[in-house]
Amino acid sequence: MRVRLDLAYDGGGFAGWAVQPGLRTVQGVLEEALATVLGTGRRGEPAPRLTVAGRTDAGVHARGQVAHVDVSADAVAAARGRSDRDPFVALVDRLGGVLPPDVVVRAAGRAPDGFDARFSAVSRRYGYRVCDQYVRRDPLRRGEVLWRRRPLDVAAMDAAAHLLVGRHDFAAFCKPRPLATTIRTLEVFSWHRPDDGADAGLVVATVRADAFCHSMVRSLVGASLAVGERRRPVEWPAELLAAGARDAAAAVVEPHGLTLEEVRYPPDDELASRAERTRARREPGDVGELGAPDAEGCCG
Amino acid sequence: MRVRLDLAYDGGGFAGWAVQPGLRTVQGVLEEALATVLGTGRRGEPAPRLTVAGRTDAGVHARGQVAHVDVSADAVAAARGRSDRDPFVALVDRLGGVLPPDVVVRAAGRAPDGFDARFSAVSRRYGYRVCDQYVRRDPLRRGEVLWRRRPLDVAAMDAAAHLLVGRHDFAAFCKPRPLATTIRTLEVFSWHRPDDGADAGLVVATVRADAFCHSMVRSLVGASLAVGERRRPVEWPAELLAAGARDAAAAVVEPHGLTLEEVRYPPDDELASRAERTRARREPGDVGELGAPDAEGCCG
Repeated sequence: MRVRLDLAYDGGGFAGWAVQPGLRTVQGVLEEALATVLGTGRRGEPAPRLTVAGRTDAGVHARGQVAHVDVSADAVAAARGRSDRDPFVALVDRLGGVLPPDVVVRAAGRAPDGFDARFSAVSRRYGYRVCDQYVRRDPLRRGEVLWRRRPLDVAAMDAAAHLLVGRHDFAAFCKPRPLATTIRTLEVFSWHRPDDGADAGLVVATVRADAFCHSMVRSLVGASLAVGERRRPVEWPAELLAAGARDAAAAVVEPHGLTLEEVRYPPDDELASRAERTRARREPGDVGELGAPDAEGCCG
Repeated sequence: MRVRLDLAYDGGGFAGWAVQPGLRTVQGVLEEALATVLGTGRRGEPAPRLTVAGRTDAGVHARGQVAHVDVSADAVAAARGRSDRDPFVALVDRLGGVLPPDVVVRAAGRAPDGFDARFSAVSRRYGYRVCDQYVRRDPLRRGEVLWRRRPLDVAAMDAAAHLLVGRHDFAAFCKPRPLATTIRTLEVFSWHRPDDGADAGLVVATVRADAFCHSMVRSLVGASLAVGERRRPVEWPAELLAAGARDAAAAVVEPHGLTLEEVRYPPDDELASRAERTRARREPGDVGELGAPDAEGCCG
């Protein structure tokens, strides 16, 4: 049985999503908790292995992460224990009792036919939060907001961002990897300063793409800050894109301002065909959500 | 010159507001930062001493805390260094460079005549945040939200809370102290589950009073949770109030859900008379905002 898990985590205490020997990773902590709650070891079943939509880098957070795990129906039933609760409600509750407080399984359920958390996804949306005013600094959110001292020109940042939207080779904004494609479709890239809500007064980027390559969002944010602080003109990030070369002024900013907010999937009857198409588009050695399953932490 | 400071802090790493030997306290960290930035020691002036509106307990946060400090005009001018910036803008900026990230001075300015951060205040407003649904748990806010597993009946909690509003002896909800009055005016006490904004889906208490006695807000919240989880009827907190005796079922809940959100002051021309009236109302040994200046951490 394939189970879909909806996840949130504070990336601050993790060396990213992907399991790495000797390091605390989200995947490692979750797989361990699942093994405990599902009792797979006790029943001699293979250890649960998670497949994730967005392999976040070290320090990057998630509120809308999605993963799947293939387990036996027996294992899911076992999570219920002797209660007559819905086994998925019981699974969420029992994981809540086992997981450390920086990882939450918000929901669990049987995945529809053809669902693959990674290959069925049509887009990933990230948010990046910056505070440029002392009066708006909230120490309680310092783990997810980048603090800057100079006031940001949000209109200039937004204008610069819009020039990057579309299908392009984002080599200028990606950590290079041998044989990896850096062509991506950037569907949304905008900056705004909300008047109200959770992010009132902050400067927030919304970045959505079919997939991201390594450090891409944080490099786009770095270029935006150079524009917002008037160190570079509005056209400069688009010029970098066209030149296809990395520039030190488009620095990869700190990971703690970055949060994976949402992963989108097509309607259920298109899940399998979407997964097939995504897999077919992969290139040898490709990284990121489109890439090799064992690629190290990505993206952002 | 009297300087008003508007403060925010994450109480998680502090043993409360008030200076205590050998412990990390908000007051201690702030007074040290002020001494550094104002150069009081270098000029042989007395070390800055802060007076605060709400002496928060260990682990309690603040977003709307207010304090004052009396310093020489020379010291304020010194914060500017050789720049021609407004000295208070410079002060905020320089404090930002010296303070640890869990304390923020959001604004500083010359206090109006008669202003006393503690005695001029007419009310303090606290918020207490609870999450009772896995799907709403946000690991990034786990430091300021209490997580409960059972769903809360918010309407019942709100009805119970309204029965406590008014001027009463809150002995049932206060840690007893010899000779201390426990009479307070509870102006607002409500529970709601916001549909949107920063607290969407959470269960939030708004608690405003002229002042609070020790552990009062957290004891009121404990009684509310007993009602919300249907362990006690709606009338029970009011019965406790009337009986005037503490009850184990109205447990003092964890401090991390509690945040001082706002301190209100009267119009400038009433600041001095308000301070005078508050001082006159003090009783010997009284604690809390109305009480002895050296009382230990309070309130919440």
